[in-house]
Amino acid sequence: MTTTLATGAEGLDIRWADGTTGSLPYIWLRDTDPSGFHPQTGERTFDLTAVPLDIAPAHAEIAGNDLLLTWQDADAPSRFDLDWIKANRPGIARHDPADIPLHPWRAELGAGGVPRHDAAAIAGTDRGLADWLADTKRFGLSIVTGLADTTEAGVAIARRVGHLRETNFGLTFEVMSKPDPNNLAYTADALPLHTDLTNQDLPPGYQFLHCLANEAQGGGSTFCDGLAVARDLRDRDPEAFRILSTVTVPFRFHDRDTDIRSRKAVITLDDAGEISEVCFNAHLADILDLDPAVMGSFYRAYQLFMRMTRDPAYGIALRLSGGEMVVFDNRRVMHGREAFDPSTGFRHLHGCYVDRGEWDSRIRVLAR
Amino acid sequence: MTTTLATGAEGLDIRWADGTTGSLPYIWLRDTDPSGFHPQTGERTFDLTAVPLDIAPAHAEIAGNDLLLTWQDADAPSRFDLDWIKANRPGIARHDPADIPLHPWRAELGAGGVPRHDAAAIAGTDRGLADWLADTKRFGLSIVTGLADTTEAGVAIARRVGHLRETNFGLTFEVMSKPDPNNLAYTADALPLHTDLTNQDLPPGYQFLHCLANEAQGGGSTFCDGLAVARDLRDRDPEAFRILSTVTVPFRFHDRDTDIRSRKAVITLDDAGEISEVCFNAHLADILDLDPAVMGSFYRAYQLFMRMTRDPAYGIALRLSGGEMVVFDNRRVMHGREAFDPSTGFRHLHGCYVDRGEWDSRIRVLAR
Repeated sequence: MTTTLATGAEGLDIRWADGTTGSLPYIWLRDTDPSGFHPQTGERTFDLTAVPLDIAPAHAEIAGNDLLLTWQDADAPSRFDLDWIKANRPGIARHDPADIPLHPWRAELGAGGVPRHDAAAIAGTDRGLADWLADTKRFGLSIVTGLADTTEAGVAIARRVGHLRETNFGLTFEVMSKPDPNNLAYTADALPLHTDLTNQDLPPGYQFLHCLANEAQGGGSTFCDGLAVARDLRDRDPEAFRILSTVTVPFRFHDRDTDIRSRKAVITLDDAGEISEVCFNAHLADILDLDPAVMGSFYRAYQLFMRMTRDPAYGIALRLSGGEMVVFDNRRVMHGREAFDPSTGFRHLHGCYVDRGEWDSRIRVLAR
Repeated sequence: MTTTLATGAEGLDIRWADGTTGSLPYIWLRDTDPSGFHPQTGERTFDLTAVPLDIAPAHAEIAGNDLLLTWQDADAPSRFDLDWIKANRPGIARHDPADIPLHPWRAELGAGGVPRHDAAAIAGTDRGLADWLADTKRFGLSIVTGLADTTEAGVAIARRVGHLRETNFGLTFEVMSKPDPNNLAYTADALPLHTDLTNQDLPPGYQFLHCLANEAQGGGSTFCDGLAVARDLRDRDPEAFRILSTVTVPFRFHDRDTDIRSRKAVITLDDAGEISEVCFNAHLADILDLDPAVMGSFYRAYQLFMRMTRDPAYGIALRLSGGEMVVFDNRRVMHGREAFDPSTGFRHLHGCYVDRGEWDSRIRVLAR
């Protein structure tokens, strides 16, 4: 069989030799013509306003492995590679190396099931970097081992991915008990499971917590996969899921120098209806401002979600040691810690963030 | 008149002395009790899972200017200031100093109508800073004058607001004609009106472009208020508005070191249905992947929006001089430039971004 074309009023119907079919609107073909993109920057330079929407080619043919379209208003024909156009035809999900299937996990994963990657392999080899990026995205959580005992060692791993995401807590931050704290993380109190900085328009993506010292009594780290909790909630209580994925609530952080606010749903869905983000932070949840009539049903759903995050069926506990760094998707995996007694020893984590955009970009570039 | 209470099954009905009424669910009152927030960090420490959803106070009364609630399970009563609770009762929009009424503008504004603020006042006084922040948010656009002839001078103004938003183009960037450009901004080509970095999960908020030299022929700057265009589109062609505010399309930037992708609608609405963001960049729009059946109606709406951005009814042209900096909300106001001839003189803008979150935070802190 060969590739065949049928011209319609608004587009071409194409049937590739392998039986794949595609419907290619003429206006899309014109807008997608490879010659309409800048040769160096790859950006579109074609001006859509220059053509009528009902544009149609004067002639369409297949020549070798190319589709050739002749336009009355253009000097040269449009030339498309037939394989390229099959992979990029309208209405299909285009291949993306960063589309790594996510693996939701529950307590059965255990501390032993968390992927562990050696810092030297990540820092020194593209393969090591790529494997760690994929594993961390799949589980939303990994441990990097073998780090030097300097605050720079963890940051250097983060910078292998991309630039750091600065926040009002700085480009990097020190998690330790401090006098006059502006954040519960900087006390010795227990921290229930949460995601960070839900009060920002874009909560930070991947979080890096490099353990430089963990000698105090207590202070174990806890994690819970918000993706697993949200999926289970969808099955168990669809109405609670509907509320948490549609009702936005106010979040706020304020201290002497800042007052940063944003509204968020606890669960965000993508265009396909899949769970793309969990945003859960009871400390930063501002005074609820919902209509009194919906307040009761929101609290019911919210309390159920909160109880699920604390259910032993979901959580895992890790005790980080010096030289280890936990890395997790802060828009998916919740983290917390037990209270610790700062009089019994020093506990010091050095932290930073790299957003999801940089993470996926690095996966794609390494996959070239 | 005095403030009166009526206890219901699920909440208190309150009527303030001025006639204002409020419905205060008991679970909300318990979750909002001021004693449930950390005295230093202001974060909520109350544990919602510790109480039943049908909790009700044993006793409720007004004492002076306070509402007092006694709970069977709590050692101390909850005490609310009556004025505070009026300002924070459920179902009302809470006061936010950053809620500055937006002023959409069209070509009539003219270059002369763009707010101009002196760098010394912004850098040296809180009042100057606050006035400039408010004006720039209102119009989405301002010009800062009187800057020193160093790249640091513009950045220092940006840092008066908050930390810079780093991107794959760096913490700051130089807009000039470069060999081997990875971005059309770094050529001498004309740039049609667009918003920057629509390929990112969160396109940068406020953009700062400090003009250090503008001696080339051509190279004038153009601006168009996306808020005005979007509002007019909503009136003129509701179906096109519906499509552009609900259908997301893929954006992508890729070069040797990055491949950053995100889906966005051209127009984003907030929870109240108001236009909160315009995301328009034909260069970064990736190959459209919509279903062929909706492609035609999308192109119709998109081309109409694009034509409106170029309609002389909307655009204004500015010729920046050395020592001037244009500042605009990149998630609202589109910017572009005329082509220039680099052989006739040097054109050099120094740029950076500060996100909306930092902008609004600074407005709030200055309003204390």
